[in-house]
Formats: sequence, C-alpha cells, structure tokens
Amino acid sequence: MLEMLTVDKIIKGALEEDLGWGDVTTDSTIPSEAAIKGNFIAKEQGIVCGIEICKRVFEIMDSSIDFEIMMADGQKVQKGDILAKISGSARSILKGERVSLNMLQRMSGIATAANKYAEAVQGTTARVVDTRKTIPGLRILDKYAVLTGGCHNHRFNLSDLVLIKDNHIKAAGGITPAVKAAREKLSHALKIEVEVESLEQLKEALQAGADIIMLDNMPLEMMREAVQLAKGKALLEASGNVALEGDRSAKAIAQTGVDIISVGALTHSVSAMDISLRFI
Amino acid sequence: MLEMLTVDKIIKGALEEDLGWGDVTTDSTIPSEAAIKGNFIAKEQGIVCGIEICKRVFEIMDSSIDFEIMMADGQKVQKGDILAKISGSARSILKGERVSLNMLQRMSGIATAANKYAEAVQGTTARVVDTRKTIPGLRILDKYAVLTGGCHNHRFNLSDLVLIKDNHIKAAGGITPAVKAAREKLSHALKIEVEVESLEQLKEALQAGADIIMLDNMPLEMMREAVQLAKGKALLEASGNVALEGDRSAKAIAQTGVDIISVGALTHSVSAMDISLRFI
Amino acid sequence: MLEMLTVDKIIKGALEEDLGWGDVTTDSTIPSEAAIKGNFIAKEQGIVCGIEICKRVFEIMDSSIDFEIMMADGQKVQKGDILAKISGSARSILKGERVSLNMLQRMSGIATAANKYAEAVQGTTARVVDTRKTIPGLRILDKYAVLTGGCHNHRFNLSDLVLIKDNHIKAAGGITPAVKAAREKLSHALKIEVEVESLEQLKEALQAGADIIMLDNMPLEMMREAVQLAKGKALLEASGNVALEGDRSAKAIAQTGVDIISVGALTHSVSAMDISLRFI
Amino acid sequence: MLEMLTVDKIIKGALEEDLGWGDVTTDSTIPSEAAIKGNFIAKEQGIVCGIEICKRVFEIMDSSIDFEIMMADGQKVQKGDILAKISGSARSILKGERVSLNMLQRMSGIATAANKYAEAVQGTTARVVDTRKTIPGLRILDKYAVLTGGCHNHRFNLSDLVLIKDNHIKAAGGITPAVKAAREKLSHALKIEVEVESLEQLKEALQAGADIIMLDNMPLEMMREAVQLAKGKALLEASGNVALEGDRSAKAIAQTGVDIISVGALTHSVSAMDISLRFI
Amino acid sequence: MLEMLTVDKIIKGALEEDLGWGDVTTDSTIPSEAAIKGNFIAKEQGIVCGIEICKRVFEIMDSSIDFEIMMADGQKVQKGDILAKISGSARSILKGERVSLNMLQRMSGIATAANKYAEAVQGTTARVVDTRKTIPGLRILDKYAVLTGGCHNHRFNLSDLVLIKDNHIKAAGGITPAVKAAREKLSHALKIEVEVESLEQLKEALQAGADIIMLDNMPLEMMREAVQLAKGKALLEASGNVALEGDRSAKAIAQTGVDIISVGALTHSVSAMDISLRFI
Amino acid sequence: MLEMLTVDKIIKGALEEDLGWGDVTTDSTIPSEAAIKGNFIAKEQGIVCGIEICKRVFEIMDSSIDFEIMMADGQKVQKGDILAKISGSARSILKGERVSLNMLQRMSGIATAANKYAEAVQGTTARVVDTRKTIPGLRILDKYAVLTGGCHNHRFNLSDLVLIKDNHIKAAGGITPAVKAAREKLSHALKIEVEVESLEQLKEALQAGADIIMLDNMPLEMMREAVQLAKGKALLEASGNVALEGDRSAKAIAQTGVDIISVGALTHSVSAMDISLRFI
Repeated sequence: MLEMLTVDKIIKGALEEDLGWGDVTTDSTIPSEAAIKGNFIAKEQGIVCGIEICKRVFEIMDSSIDFEIMMADGQKVQKGDILAKISGSARSILKGERVSLNMLQRMSGIATAANKYAEAVQGTTARVVDTRKTIPGLRILDKYAVLTGGCHNHRFNLSDLVLIKDNHIKAAGGITPAVKAAREKLSHALKIEVEVESLEQLKEALQAGADIIMLDNMPLEMMREAVQLAKGKALLEASGNVALEGDRSAKAIAQTGVDIISVGALTHSVSAMDISLRFI
Repeated sequence: MLEMLTVDKIIKGALEEDLGWGDVTTDSTIPSEAAIKGNFIAKEQGIVCGIEICKRVFEIMDSSIDFEIMMADGQKVQKGDILAKISGSARSILKGERVSLNMLQRMSGIATAANKYAEAVQGTTARVVDTRKTIPGLRILDKYAVLTGGCHNHRFNLSDLVLIKDNHIKAAGGITPAVKAAREKLSHALKIEVEVESLEQLKEALQAGADIIMLDNMPLEMMREAVQLAKGKALLEASGNVALEGDRSAKAIAQTGVDIISVGALTHSVSAMDISLRFI
Repeated sequence: MLEMLTVDKIIKGALEEDLGWGDVTTDSTIPSEAAIKGNFIAKEQGIVCGIEICKRVFEIMDSSIDFEIMMADGQKVQKGDILAKISGSARSILKGERVSLNMLQRMSGIATAANKYAEAVQGTTARVVDTRKTIPGLRILDKYAVLTGGCHNHRFNLSDLVLIKDNHIKAAGGITPAVKAAREKLSHALKIEVEVESLEQLKEALQAGADIIMLDNMPLEMMREAVQLAKGKALLEASGNVALEGDRSAKAIAQTGVDIISVGALTHSVSAMDISLRFI
Repeated sequence: MLEMLTVDKIIKGALEEDLGWGDVTTDSTIPSEAAIKGNFIAKEQGIVCGIEICKRVFEIMDSSIDFEIMMADGQKVQKGDILAKISGSARSILKGERVSLNMLQRMSGIATAANKYAEAVQGTTARVVDTRKTIPGLRILDKYAVLTGGCHNHRFNLSDLVLIKDNHIKAAGGITPAVKAAREKLSHALKIEVEVESLEQLKEALQAGADIIMLDNMPLEMMREAVQLAKGKALLEASGNVALEGDRSAKAIAQTGVDIISVGALTHSVSAMDISLRFI
Repeated sequence: MLEMLTVDKIIKGALEEDLGWGDVTTDSTIPSEAAIKGNFIAKEQGIVCGIEICKRVFEIMDSSIDFEIMMADGQKVQKGDILAKISGSARSILKGERVSLNMLQRMSGIATAANKYAEAVQGTTARVVDTRKTIPGLRILDKYAVLTGGCHNHRFNLSDLVLIKDNHIKAAGGITPAVKAAREKLSHALKIEVEVESLEQLKEALQAGADIIMLDNMPLEMMREAVQLAKGKALLEASGNVALEGDRSAKAIAQTGVDIISVGALTHSVSAMDISLRFI
Repeated sequence: MLEMLTVDKIIKGALEEDLGWGDVTTDSTIPSEAAIKGNFIAKEQGIVCGIEICKRVFEIMDSSIDFEIMMADGQKVQKGDILAKISGSARSILKGERVSLNMLQRMSGIATAANKYAEAVQGTTARVVDTRKTIPGLRILDKYAVLTGGCHNHRFNLSDLVLIKDNHIKAAGGITPAVKAAREKLSHALKIEVEVESLEQLKEALQAGADIIMLDNMPLEMMREAVQLAKGKALLEASGNVALEGDRSAKAIAQTGVDIISVGALTHSVSAMDISLRFI
C-alpha cells in the first residue's frame, strides 16, 4: 500500500531540500573512506512506523550502506529498544540522518497515537479512521502510519468517494436530488456518503440510498437513535471533535453503535516519537 | 522570504494529491455556474500564518475567485475572528478548501507555538530558533511560520552553516583540526558552529575560532559558566529537550545568558490551529 | 471532472513533443505579425469531445489567440458543422494545430463510439462502462470522453475499487476469505467487486457481501440466472468480448438484466473522428 | 532508436496513473511472499511490438521479477503463441499487468497494421510512412511500432524537417520565396519539403529546389504525371485518405511511382492487438 | 525559434538555483513597497542577444515590473548604450538581476563572436555554423545566439541529421554500406552527412549519395580539390580548429569554396559581454 | 560537495537534450552488439575536472560500460596524457560521448583558469573566489571546478549570505540600519557582508559589525588603507575587474593584504580545455 515509485519521489525531494548544494561540514571534515556504525534507538515507548522508508533513504543516498531492520513497522517498542542497525560510509550516513529521522519520527508518532485510538474502541464494532487533514505531499505516508497503528483509512482524496456535504445539498436542492445526481453521473464503483445534522436528514439520506452517513457533531444520545434507524442499512460515521478522553471520547462514541469514527487530529496534530540515531 | 516559485510548486502538488482525478462529489452535484461566499474563521486564539498562501491556493485553482485578507500573517486573533473572506465559483472554492485549510492550520499552529516561546524569553537577550526537524518538502513554510510567530531561524539546510558535531570531531581528530579543515576548504561566507558537551571542549572551540558554539544538553549551571567563558567571543546556543515549562524551560535557559535556544518541537510536533471555512 | 492542473501538464508535454526545439518552417517563412483565421470543421458525423481542451492548447501557446467554441462537448455534429472558430497570430495557431487536432480527434472518436453503445442499451437498466485499457498518461481524457459520449466510468485506477480476480481468490484461499481480508484491512469507503466464472462462485460472492460481481465471459443464459440470484443484492457486471453487433452485443447482454457492461474497446481501439482546421 | 531514458519516464508515468496510491486489492488479499507464473499469449495473429518495454515495466516495478522474451519485436505471431514468460512476486506482477498490456497491445496493433501496408507496397519503390497524428506523449513508441511493422517514419516533430504548406506559402508570397527564406535562415542540415496541389505548383517547387514534394490529395493520374516531372529531382510523397483497399489504396498509389506514401491512420486509429497474460 | 515553454523552464530553474530559499538580504533590508528604476547598459561594444529573455525573467519574477526593450536582439551596440529600461518593485528587480544578466551576457557574448565570424566570411558563399559543443541544458539559447550574431546552425541534436563518422564507417564496413543502411532504415526526411579524411573517401561518399560531406581537419589545398570534385553534388563542410585569424582562419577556409564551416569555439569557449544593470 | 542526486538530474537533462528522440546515425549503422574502446586524452596542459561526472554519464547511459579513471579531479595533466579509459557497447559510448566531453571540457577549463589565479596569489594571505556569474543550472558544477582548481567559493546563492549592496543601503536608510535590520530579522547562522565604495563607508560597516566588507572597485592604495583599518575586525573582499595580469592583477591586489578577491571571469568567460575521446 506504499508504492515505492511514489515514496522514492518524496525521499529524493526531502534529501534535496536538506542537502542544499552539499553538506559542507561533512565533506570538509570527514575523509571519504571513513566508516561509521550506529543504532536507531527508541527514546520512548511507541509503535514503530516508517522503518522501511528509513532504510530506503539510505539506499537512495548510497547503495553500499548496510541497514538491518530489528523492529518491523507496527511493532510496539520500549524505551531503549534498537529499531535498526546501520553501518557504512560516514559521509553518506550523516547526510541521510536528519531526513530519515524526520520521516521515522513523524510516522511513528502517528502510529503511536493511532494505536491509542484503536485500543480505545477495542471490543466495540467501530473503527477509528483518518481524514484528509494531512500534510501536503505526504498523505500516502500519513495514511500508512494510521493503518500501521491499528486504525483505518477514510477516503484518500476527492475522487474515490462521493461525500455530499452541506453545500452540495444546498446547491443540488436537497439530499435526495444530490444523491440521485451523483448516482446517475458517477461510476457505479463509488460509494456515496451523505453528511447529516439531524435525524430528519438521516432518514432522507437512508431513503435516498446513501451507503455511508456522516453524523456531524451529533450528541451521543442522538447518535444512539441514529444507530437504531440506520443499522444494517448504511454505515454510520461519527465526526467532530473526537478525542481520547472526555465527553466525546472515541470509546463513548463507539459504544453508541456507530461503525466509523473519524479523527482529524490523528494527522493534523502529530507529536513526533522520540527516536535517535546513536553512533557506536 | 517565501518565494512564490517554490510555494506554487508545493500548492500544485497538494492540489493534485487532494483532487486525484477530480472532485466527483462537487462536479456531479453543483452546477458549474453556482456561486458561494464564506469566511475563514478562527475557532481558537492564536497567531495567523499562511493567509497569503491560502489566497494563492485559490488563485491557482481559479483566478476569478475573490479572496480578501482580513488578518495578516503575524496578527494575534481571537476565537470568532474572520481571517479572510472568499467568494466565487462554488465548485472551485470547495475543491480548494481542504488544501488551503491544511496549510493555514499547520502554519498558524506553528506560529502560535512560536509566539509562546518568543514571549517566554522576552526581556532576555536570547532568541528561540527552529531546527531542521521539519516536514519533508515543507521546510520553507515551517521556517516562515516560526519567524511569523516571533522566533528566529537556525540554518536552512546542510549547505548554509558549518555545524561540527561529535562524529565530525572524531573523524577529523579533534575540534581544532575539524575547524581548521572547514575554514581552509570552505567558503569564507560560512559561519562555523561547534557542538560541545563540556567546558573543556568549549574552550577548545573558542580557541579554534568557532563563530557559534552549541551547548548540547548542558545543565543550567554549566551553561552559566559557559556564558562567562564565551560571552563576546562566540554565540552560544543551548540545545536539547527545551520546553515552555519545567526544569529546562526556555525562560530559565534564556536567563543563563545564552544567545540562542533551539527547539525542535516547534516544527516536529505541531498542533494545528482550529480554523474553519464557514459558508454564508 | 477534468481538472485543469492535470490537463495543462498533458498539453504542455504534447506541445513540447511536437515542437521539438522550434517550428522551423513557420518561424522561417511567416512574419511574426501575420494573422490568420480558421474553422474547426467536422468531416464526418459524430459526438464532439475535447473542444475545451482544444481551446486550452491555444491559450497555453499564445494567450492572445481568439477561440470561439460553436459546439460544446457532447453535441452531435454533422459533416460540415463548424465546431469552433479561431483567429490570431499565424505562427502560434500553426504551431498548436497538430496537437489540438490530435487530442480533439481522439476524444471525439471515443465519444462517438461511446454514444453508439449508449444508444444500444437505451431502454434497459444497464449502463455501458469503460475499463483501465486506456492510453498511458491520457486516462483522464479517455474516461472523460466515454462520459461525454453517454456511457459511464468504471474505476479510475487500482486504488479506488477493490476488484478481486482469479489470482487474488487463489492466493487468499477462496472468495470468502478474500472479501473478508479486503473488508478488514481496507477503507470502508471502498466498494468490493468479485469476478466470478460460475453461479457457484456468484453465490459465494453474494454470501460474502460483495457490492459488485463481475460475470466473466458468461453465456447469456447463465447471465439471466445470475440476475435472478443477485438482483437487489449486488450490482452485476458483464464483461468479455462485448461488441455493438453479434452474439455478445451490448443490447443482448443488457436485456439479460445486468447492471453494468464493460467494454475495453471503447478506449483500447479508437477510430479518430475526422476533423480539420480549415483556414479562411 | 528507443532511448530508455525517455521510455522510463513514460513507464513510470503510466504506473503512477494506474496504481493511484496503491493497489488496494492485491495488497489486502495476497501475501507479500506469494509467487506467480504466467505467459503473455497472442490471442490473434499479428506482429509483436513492445515486448522489451513490457519487460522494462516489470523491471521498474520490481527488479527481482524474471521476464523471458520468447518472441522479439517484429516477429509475426499466431494465435496461441507465447510472447514472453514471467515469474516472480505475485503482488508486483499483478500491479504491472495492466500497464504492460496496454503498451504491448497498442504497439503490436500499430505494427500489425503497418505490416499490412508494407506488404501492400512490396515490389514497388514506394515506402509507407507515418505522420505526426500520434498520441500525445507517446510519439516515440508509436513511431517505433510503425518501423517494427515494416513501414518507415516521416519527420518526428516540427523541428527536424521544413514542411512548407498552404499557409506558409501564402504568408511568404509564394513557393519560391518560401523555400528561399527557409534555405537562407535555417540549418543546411534540414531538408525542405513543399506541399503542392497542382502540377504548376509542383514545377515551381522543383525549380525552387525542394528536396521532397508532397502531393496533397492528388488523383492517381495526376500523380503519374508528377512522377514524370519530378523523378530523380525530388522525392515525391503522396498524402490524403490512403487506405489498404479501394480507390486510393496504398498499392495503387505506389504503382504510380511516388517514393513516399503517408498514412495518418497508422497511428491515429489503432486497433489494439489481443494479447493476454495468462497465469499458470 | 525560441519556444517560450522551453525558455520558461530554463528561467524558472535558474531563478530557483539563485534564490535558494529566499533572498535574505533584500527581504530583510528593503520594504516590500519600495520601487526602483534602472537601465541595462552595454559596457563594451557588441551584438545584443537575449533581451527578450531578460524581459521574461522579470515577468516570471513579478508580472507588475515594467521592462522596456531599447535594443532588439541582433542590434550592434556601443559602450554606454541603453539596452533596456526597467522599473518596479525593488525587491523583485534585485532578485531577478543576477539571473537576467547571466543569460544576457552569455548570449550577447556568443552573438558578438558569431558576428565576427559572419563578417569574416562575407563575400564568400560559405556560412559559419555552430556545433553540439554547447552548455548542457542551454543548447536552445546557445544556438539562438549564434543565429542572432549572423552565423547559422548545424544539427540540433543526434536525431535530426545522420552524421556518419569514423566509428560508424568502421562498424558498418565502409562508407557505402553505412550510407546504405542509414538510407534504408531511417526517415527520408533526414539528410545524410559523412565525415571524410581523404579525397578517396570523399569520392566514395559522393558515390554513395551523401547530402553533406565533412572534411575533417583537411589542409586548405586538399579542400580546394574537394570543392572541385564535389561542388554541386553535395554540400561540403570544413571542420577542425577553425579560428578568426591564422592558418586556418574562417576567411581562408571560406575562400576554398566550401559551403559550411563549423566552429566549436562559438559555444564551448564564450566570453561574456560586459553589461550591467545600473540603478538611477 | 557534489551531490549525485543533483548531478544525475543535470546529466539526464543533458542526455535528453542531445539524444533528441534517438541517435539515428548510431542506431542505423552500428550493430547493437558491437564493442569499442577509447581513451580520453588531454590535447593541452591543464587541470582535469569532471572526470567522475564523465564516468557517471556513461553509467547512466549504460551500466555495463567500463570506465577507468587515470587522472583524478585536480591533477595537472600534460598534452597527450590519458585521463580515462573506456570500453563497452559502441552504441552507448558514442551516444554519451558529446555530453561527457561538453561537461569535462568546461569543468577542466574552469579548473585550469582557477589554478592560475591560485598560483598568482600564492605566498599571500588572500584567496581568490568565484561569484554568482555562473551558467544557469550548472552552478554546482562551476563552483566545484573553481574549488578543484585551487580557488575558493563565495556564497552559493541569495539565501546563504547577507550581502548588503548599494540599493539595500539606500532603501534601509544607511549601512547601520541595514545591518541592524538584517541581524534582527535573519538567522544568527548567516554572516553579513557590506559592499562599500569609500573608507567612510568602511568605517561605518565596521562599526555596524559587518563580518565581511567588499571593497568595490577600489584603487590599490585605498585598499591598503582599508586593510589598516579593518584587519582583524572583518574580512576584506576586493572586487571589480580583477585579472591575471595588469594594473588590477590578482597578485597586486593580494599584496595589499585583503583576504578575499572575487573574480567573475572564472565562470562567466570560460575557455573549454581541449580534450578528446580517441578510439583505439
């Protein structure tokens, strides 16, 4: 799900951005033949993600570098665990260090947060999913990290799911004509989701044949009623200010019986996991 | 400092990523001639950043869209403030919405955090700066946001400052030969920074003529001694686990008399500012 | 559905390919100030498609060219009809002529063929759709032309629909585990289609909850039975050697009651519509 | 004549277009370690073309795939012939299948049609050539396929031959001044071709020293006269509505004694050759 | 002959290279609203070339800049002449200054040198032409400058002229089979040139029907004999160590009666013309 | 200091430019299996530079080519010396020949000239540096060649040094406020250089704390005074019409005691070193 053609472009862009026209420090102080060894070490607990990409950074930088993965994407690691061992040209390793860590730390940060949400809804039938609130240019990595952490993906972009919102409804003259227009003009291969704010709208969306219905910022009580109305007829997605704790916790929402809970913060507000490359 | 040639590439890449092969929902439910109006509204307090870029997203999407900036980059806004007004083709505005918000929210999030650090060191002679721990491909935006929030920038990439670290020192045979090699081989236009872990090393770096000396994870007490030794001879940079609060607060560090405090979290762990595009 | 950011890249690539390092004939024989006028004329009956793109070719070539569209995409035109009028710099128009016609003729050729299929299934509940058998790099144009001609689109690429075929079934250990794996791992936003070769397999796919079932090269009689079994439970897609005439005509297949008929020839074997740019 | 730097760009673009952000079906249902074997089989008679490119698609996709070519470009194959054998990672092979077939089928379709034209003019001194009526972005492949089928190429783009047409003649004030202008301003390395509609024009073009003269839509009788006038002084090219059969058959035209017969349909209206990848 | 699609790419690349991530000096010291005026002034005599490109640099940088061309490409200018006037945003003008001058000075330097060669052969029937010894990526500009200075172009690249050299002759088994192979396999639209070192080879090349024959480093006397043998049958090109003065001066060579004299130094060893942007 | 990611892009662009859509001569006359051997030979004395890049050209063209470097970058070579030996596919070698030589000859030409300047200032404390007067797109190569020849680099682009010139001073209201603005707004990692035309300005720049001061076109006598005033407080750079010989010779300027002498001609007016690939 992480096509290397696309990943390679991201990595090359990142290396060019960071190298500028050359690593002046390394090239002036380190002999070209010098070798180095190091370990990628977790400095806090979390879910590792991006270790294959980390490896690929160094392959692109210098194919003679040896990179041994010790912890695969998705594994839970403890402070002090070695994620990977690296050895080879000191120049090449130092030049790729920052880019590899930037990617690994962000992706592991996302996976770690996703894992907490996945655990929060365990035992319910709901799945927590991401949104399109990702970093421009890195959506493919962000969504992979969400998956690695145990959550699921929502649509990837504007062309792989019909998601009829407020403005579409207004412009089309209602939920029914909006769904009808989409079904008639668009590929049968696409699902249709409708965003609703009331149970009235929910009923109309069901009647119109929506495959998925998004309950926008609905109180928990209303969600429960929605589940009664829609269960088995359409997937229900809860959306809006979901958190790990508090009134609108993922767990409380999951217990209403909805199928999907979308959480923007998974990707728009990420805490990088603390990982370092320690030379030995 | 935000060259539009570069920014345009980022925006186009982001739009292509989000549009996929077309916005199926909008094109099937909204007539091409439909118009729409909306306001970008702050849903929490913060420092706005990226509003020009937001405007540029829509210019690239559709040059007939009208976008009026109400709050310039760097302004402090309150919950409910209107940052910009937009009107024009409903299709074009809806297609650019997510990309514009993703950029605006991240950049404002960075600026808001930076602003807190800038306030924390007010009254001291220290400045808080960013690092290279940025999002691959977006460094130019991340660093601009740091500046907008009132902090400053460290080097942009590996080619515009010599920063001699542990491994360079080892490979070169010491701080003195490392600095000497860099000075002899590299452009006179570059400053030379040396990372040190002890006062012994600090003295050697001063002796070697370093322009900047990074005090890596030094206790506050040792930093104060370092200031005594180096003040006026080189810029001193404190680095390592700096936070807003606690033992290693930016304020406490600033009060030791160091010149520069670098904070990776400014860009590696960003909380997006809550901003929405509300249609009217 | 035809995002101009993408279309512009295709057009620029086509112009660069055709211009090489310059149009030696035009630049050496025609004064830079010479003007010219011409009409795009249909030389046979058909459905026009690509006229907006044609206009865009000349906008990119030279924004001062005047291009007036007389027949919009989707209109049926007769031999001799004027599709568009063009006037402006002789140099610029001659340089864009071939590229504009190459795109217009292919797209109109596809739309014209699609229109015949659309008419063939009129009165039934089936829709004819395209496949991924398109020209590398031009899928967005090919699929738009199919739509313009009155047919519909199948999935755009490998990431917007699950389509479980023979090899996937074998590798997963059967239809049921394959569908289960896809549903568990993938986004709820994706539909799942299963390709079947027998009614046995059809039943298993229905049981597994497939949204769409592809009947691969089934005899008409078997298709009718499939319709009895599946109607209302899943969409049925007929596939394999469909033509306008003969045993496996789109019409005959449509009359079995299937929902979708996919036709690869719509895009893999295209007859360009004969259109010329006549100068006046 | 098929430079791999250019071909690689086309292939990568095609793979990116088809993969989108990942092959959801294959990655969710097939284990990463699963292997597969298959044969590319001709399902109708024709001239194979593009088999090297087919191989390159899989090399780019996954360098560990084994691809054995059984029939080289240019070979005539019968229904049932194996063109190539493939084995390796099931995931990688399935992901590259559609792109490889799309290219192979189109190129073989062109070569097969070209071969019929080549046979039609056998025994005469004429050669059938292609035109610039190719698919945007794929001209290099289209022209290679024409050559593979036994026909020849006309100019590749607007910069490698001077071709003076109607509009150039009018703007320059006649054939003579047009040819003179081209000769004076342009490289001596370029040939000059003039398009004529009458024998009067032909004489003027000869007098002006044209290297090649295009007889635009001339009746066969007039062509014969043209041959009498021009043979040995300039190459004569017949153009306009050439077909395999009928009044303006390539054979009949070739028998007039012209040197070159250009056929747009070779590339603007292509029937893909039926080839499939059958797994064993 | 200078297609803007290509030129724009070169200019954007040059601006990105020179701006890095921003012009730190200009953005920090000059207010965004400051305006400036200046003149591009020749500081030595020469032929101006690239002034349109210079204008385009600033259009791309900032479309509100006013740029008035005073001396068109090809004009001979004296020390002190104003080539163009510029006014507008100080920031934008200063950011584009270096790139515009780098291109203008190189192109004018080439045109000025070319002009000297053109004058040297005036009165003869020979033309001086360039070679493929150009700067990687800028061939289109280099060749345009040669033309602007009054010389002519040789082939643009390896695909628009057959040029059979030593190695091709050896591999093909002689001049005759090499020419035959090229004529049979390649487009009739291409001329065939053969490089020869002796009069024997010249005769064989003539016999084989070469369109152009390159006399590689031949003494003047032998060139005169070659002219006797070949005049009217093929174009003769003199090549090898041609200079403005001395034994192998362009003038002396031209007087032998050859048609073409190719001079690599026109583009491989360029003296930039001294031009400055003086602010007023 | 010559990052291969960037170099590869330059090489690929150069090969595409030179190959066009294919080397028609080579592909039509030389069998695909033919092999060839040759030597890169210096035809004049000089400093070799670019031999690694030369090697890389052929690696990109065809990884099976054998390329043995005999003289490393920076070595002084005599007429007749073999710089490298090459053997492998005749087709591939002939296709890469021109591009490899174009790069090698230019870079060696720059290094050879730089070497003369380096020798001229030997025994003084001055270093000769390049400028931003480089070829668009090739700055990284030009600057590497300057270094290889024994000179040094000035800033790479507009973002890695603050260089306050005339216009910046005027707009900021003087040297003092300009330096102050730059120091306050910009990164502490950047040095600040000020261009001055008088000793008055020099004193102000010193007072303002400039790190480097450029003496613009100052007479030698004034430079000596400048050295008296500034030595030890700031680096002094002499600029303007520096040559190897004459009144403003590098040597004479170096003897004034300045630290840096910048020479635009090193890169804006390059004589290619004569090197050829001789086949054996």
